[in-house]
Amino acid sequence: MKIEEIGGEFALIRRLSEIVPTTGPEVIQGIGDDAAVIRVAPEPAPFLLVTTDILVEERHFKRAWASPEQIGIKAAECNVSDIAAMGGRAQWMFVSLVLPRDTDVAWTEALYGGIARSCRHHNVALLGGDTTRGAQVTINITLLGSVSPDHLRLRSHARPGDALVVTGSLGASAAALALLGAGRSPSAYLLEKHLAPSCRMDVASRIAPLAHAMIDISDGLGSEVGHICTASRVGAEIWAAAVPLHDEVRMAGRLLGVDPLQWALGGGEDFELLFSITPANIPRLKAAGVTCHEVGRVTDRTGEMVLISGDGDATPLGGGYDHFKE
Amino acid sequence: MKIEEIGGEFALIRRLSEIVPTTGPEVIQGIGDDAAVIRVAPEPAPFLLVTTDILVEERHFKRAWASPEQIGIKAAECNVSDIAAMGGRAQWMFVSLVLPRDTDVAWTEALYGGIARSCRHHNVALLGGDTTRGAQVTINITLLGSVSPDHLRLRSHARPGDALVVTGSLGASAAALALLGAGRSPSAYLLEKHLAPSCRMDVASRIAPLAHAMIDISDGLGSEVGHICTASRVGAEIWAAAVPLHDEVRMAGRLLGVDPLQWALGGGEDFELLFSITPANIPRLKAAGVTCHEVGRVTDRTGEMVLISGDGDATPLGGGYDHFKE
Repeated sequence: MKIEEIGGEFALIRRLSEIVPTTGPEVIQGIGDDAAVIRVAPEPAPFLLVTTDILVEERHFKRAWASPEQIGIKAAECNVSDIAAMGGRAQWMFVSLVLPRDTDVAWTEALYGGIARSCRHHNVALLGGDTTRGAQVTINITLLGSVSPDHLRLRSHARPGDALVVTGSLGASAAALALLGAGRSPSAYLLEKHLAPSCRMDVASRIAPLAHAMIDISDGLGSEVGHICTASRVGAEIWAAAVPLHDEVRMAGRLLGVDPLQWALGGGEDFELLFSITPANIPRLKAAGVTCHEVGRVTDRTGEMVLISGDGDATPLGGGYDHFKE
Repeated sequence: MKIEEIGGEFALIRRLSEIVPTTGPEVIQGIGDDAAVIRVAPEPAPFLLVTTDILVEERHFKRAWASPEQIGIKAAECNVSDIAAMGGRAQWMFVSLVLPRDTDVAWTEALYGGIARSCRHHNVALLGGDTTRGAQVTINITLLGSVSPDHLRLRSHARPGDALVVTGSLGASAAALALLGAGRSPSAYLLEKHLAPSCRMDVASRIAPLAHAMIDISDGLGSEVGHICTASRVGAEIWAAAVPLHDEVRMAGRLLGVDPLQWALGGGEDFELLFSITPANIPRLKAAGVTCHEVGRVTDRTGEMVLISGDGDATPLGGGYDHFKE
């Protein structure tokens, strides 16, 4: 049986996680959040956070479209984003690299230049890795970080009545990808969002003390709302008209005849944060200088995720990107 | 310029590590040992160990030769071996997997079955990972562990006069690979050593309290002796006649017309441990039930690594496997 036949990437992960031991006395959170959470010393010492992401040429980036610096930035930022989504700070990075035989040293150094830019920005040190040869450029980054126990934000902590809030506009990365795929040139804004995104570590530490659940948007808003609802055993409604879309995303939608909301819901790789919070605390966030957008509500209708149109019609909220389906 | 032109994998790693920040206040050991060592809580709390290895189809394993269980075991054991070489215990694993689109679910589950066997054996929990699609099966494992500060064994701790000792016979994996490459069938013993090796976590904790430097043999004895000498700023002599070779390795050598010592020195993937120790302490090791073989001496002739033949002739000690040269 093929992976797409059993339901794709997430179904595979569920099956695999039943085969291998997945817990232990020090494990606060194993598989199923943006990062694993491990108690490495008695509280109130910080918990250790660990996340890993693998990027494969042609699937996550194209050498024809992205500079090596951009690829390095994206590889690093998508991991830092996972640590930010836990409420933590990023600290130690490990990079495994597969390179085709003819890869140029200068290209490889520029890739590391991009990784280094992101590391310096987030005060992260590269402590190890592995390098080998293969058919496709493949970059695996494992990033460790830490979070104080009272700032840890899990997907499972959403409560009915919470506001669902995002930290910025969505769909830009998917819009750029669609334009590139159609042979059009995206604007500099869209291109940067797609090729060299910045994660939202800049606001995560101000959100964490006030939020309940938090997740980063790497597979589209629809998918991430689904993850929070599943983990928290709640439901959600998302208000279509409230999902923030940049003007250039709307323009790209008109150009390609696509509803840009679909890019926000299912496009992914925006690396903004989605969190749930008591609505009364949103003004405190804004007072702390966090720009954010309320896009819906957590409900007590477990597993029911709906998109409410401007006319008030409710339709099921679509999912996100799946590497074995697309 | 291509990677092989600058001197291969290790030269590349040196250049790359100059680009990215590679240290920090909590870093006991960064790039340059089998695992990174991080102080996550004040001593005497254990140090955190982190290692990562990436295995690529056709380069590290062939689906035609190895069962998915064997590939899983090898992927896990080569990481556990790195933790063993630091004197530590393995605890938490993260697996990133790249699978071609047509990969069978049963094959993937069997791969995880192999990883699970190794995890159960070493009491390791799988806490996360990533799964995506690509041209070649690629497995990146990051393994975390811990070591008490007084049992930490670094490559840099060898002292002139130390005995160089290995935990078992060498060259079996390389002999099996050579036989397979020549279209011959290796014995069950050789095949198991190559396709589903076991690392030496079983003896590491008894060696660590007595040894000075320690490293696992993943790139051939010659290469590992070189790493210890470079890190410890010492020299070494290896006694050719003392390098333990299994009878089946000698037989394979006769069959293929190859000096089997070359497999031990340059073949790699034996996953035995090499360590340096005050010679007077070797009997204490043996009393603790550790079978081991003295293969040479650490000298004060910095950077001079020689192989002493049975006749007493000294020749430069050859290096190990390099993914960008072979």
